[in-house]
Amino acid sequence: MAVALGIATIFATPGIAQNLLPSWNDGAAKTAIVAFVGRVTAPGGPDFVPELERIAVFDNDGTLWAEQPIYFQIAFALERVKVLAPEHPEWQQKEPFKSVLAGDVKGVMAGGEHALLEIIAATHAGMTTDEFDKTARAWVATAKHPKTDRPYTDMAYQPMLELLAYFRANGFKTFIVSGGGIEFMRAFAENVYGIPPEQVIGSSGKTKFELRDGDPVLVKLPEINFVDDGAGKPVGIQMHIGRRPIAAFGNSDGDLQMLQWTCSRPGLTFCLYVHHTDAEREWAYDRRSSIGGLDKGLDEAAAKGWTVVNMKDDWKSIFKFEAR
Amino acid sequence: MAVALGIATIFATPGIAQNLLPSWNDGAAKTAIVAFVGRVTAPGGPDFVPELERIAVFDNDGTLWAEQPIYFQIAFALERVKVLAPEHPEWQQKEPFKSVLAGDVKGVMAGGEHALLEIIAATHAGMTTDEFDKTARAWVATAKHPKTDRPYTDMAYQPMLELLAYFRANGFKTFIVSGGGIEFMRAFAENVYGIPPEQVIGSSGKTKFELRDGDPVLVKLPEINFVDDGAGKPVGIQMHIGRRPIAAFGNSDGDLQMLQWTCSRPGLTFCLYVHHTDAEREWAYDRRSSIGGLDKGLDEAAAKGWTVVNMKDDWKSIFKFEAR
Repeated sequence: MAVALGIATIFATPGIAQNLLPSWNDGAAKTAIVAFVGRVTAPGGPDFVPELERIAVFDNDGTLWAEQPIYFQIAFALERVKVLAPEHPEWQQKEPFKSVLAGDVKGVMAGGEHALLEIIAATHAGMTTDEFDKTARAWVATAKHPKTDRPYTDMAYQPMLELLAYFRANGFKTFIVSGGGIEFMRAFAENVYGIPPEQVIGSSGKTKFELRDGDPVLVKLPEINFVDDGAGKPVGIQMHIGRRPIAAFGNSDGDLQMLQWTCSRPGLTFCLYVHHTDAEREWAYDRRSSIGGLDKGLDEAAAKGWTVVNMKDDWKSIFKFEAR
Repeated sequence: MAVALGIATIFATPGIAQNLLPSWNDGAAKTAIVAFVGRVTAPGGPDFVPELERIAVFDNDGTLWAEQPIYFQIAFALERVKVLAPEHPEWQQKEPFKSVLAGDVKGVMAGGEHALLEIIAATHAGMTTDEFDKTARAWVATAKHPKTDRPYTDMAYQPMLELLAYFRANGFKTFIVSGGGIEFMRAFAENVYGIPPEQVIGSSGKTKFELRDGDPVLVKLPEINFVDDGAGKPVGIQMHIGRRPIAAFGNSDGDLQMLQWTCSRPGLTFCLYVHHTDAEREWAYDRRSSIGGLDKGLDEAAAKGWTVVNMKDDWKSIFKFEAR
């Protein structure tokens, strides 16, 4: 009887620090989050997971911060084209650079993935990793979002910042697993999300070690090393973490394989999609969006009982700067 | 005056838990280690480094455990060839497998790097990451070293196990950065070294995400993804850690660029080479060895004042199983 009561008490433990989620409205999503954390952290409970295995992975664009009207890293790259243009007079006549310099974002996008890769290669390579880091940090510190006129880092979702802290307070190690550039994200992930560089996984270019006058540098080359999107996400997780996560958070079909990989792990797991449903406070988009398209993922979430956050209803505030 | 005394006290602080190094003889190497740890951990001292930046990187073969008479992972691969041979009748007539099956290690080695890559591809690919992990763990649990007839994991260097614990007790995060296979090392790094899988960096093959009857798996492909040796080590460090270490430990020329990369970081840094000088208790080899060759590294260590551990003199015991 004492034992039975003990177990009942354990089941009722909702995980410590659930008051770390003030921007979440009470509802199914918050309830599911708190229940999951409570169960995997309950010592002696049937779903207990040791701390070393409490790995949670988070997509970045559209999951931890906004991704409209264009991925923020693309905004950074377009800005860099303008800054670097004086050194590249040929860009005045050469697409996609010509469109960038004319401020014609639609013209750039018309070039498709190839145009974007050319822009990334021209702006993310040909310098050392240290130089790139400084450039990215300077942009993050000064650039403003075109809609809100606030620093891009203010576009982080307050409920997700709280969720990161809540998971860490419960012994989780939090990782970013994003299609975004690994070096670009590292320039702000520690300050904005409290996630150190070794817990950031992303797409990358190749780098090359060189001695320059005896001083070692790593030079960023204009060659793709790894694309951390779609089926690449479980590959990146295995390469960097080497153990299957027990919780995964995404917002698009590019996160689907990461969620599948996580939630097919034996034992209790948790998968969550952020669904962009708030056209007033943020943006509303899903199945047909060219950015952050969420189509197959919505169906699979329904079929598998994954948690879907309805931003409009589940989030009391979306950004910290909103009037409360 | 009180301030001056306070600083003197800080300078004298030798880092906590230096009694964690009982297998180290008193001498220049131990003194240098303890002095470095004391200085970077002294709050308010001129060389203080915040915990998040206390990254220490360790080569594995020849630095954390032995690597003679052949790299232990090669012993694993040769054993796997024998186990898998019944499924591959063609191996009876085909090099390098024929030599492996005949127990002719010299014949295998005569095939050079190409032969070894063929053996690695045949034994480390064509299965899922989970299957490989199980296979590697089973081998580690049962295989015996040919000279000592002890489990390979007993061939870890006791002084280095103590050093890992000493660094961690002083707020360091310890990483393996090795030419060995990342998945192979993860099969024992946590138990033997206390290093979790996400802090193991190594060479790797490509993997591919697949759904098998709806269940996701990662399949190991017979293609090289990354070679974490020589100039690849700083590349691997940047990819996985994203920040420059402040301490690096190696034993061969394959570690030289990792030490250069670490010890050219601004601020106080520490680089150490393990020099294999004890033919009786371990093995003695350096400049001309085909395994763990240490030639340029010895010269650069002397030129730059890096610490060189003389195993014979600096280590009271090398393996835990030695009589004390």
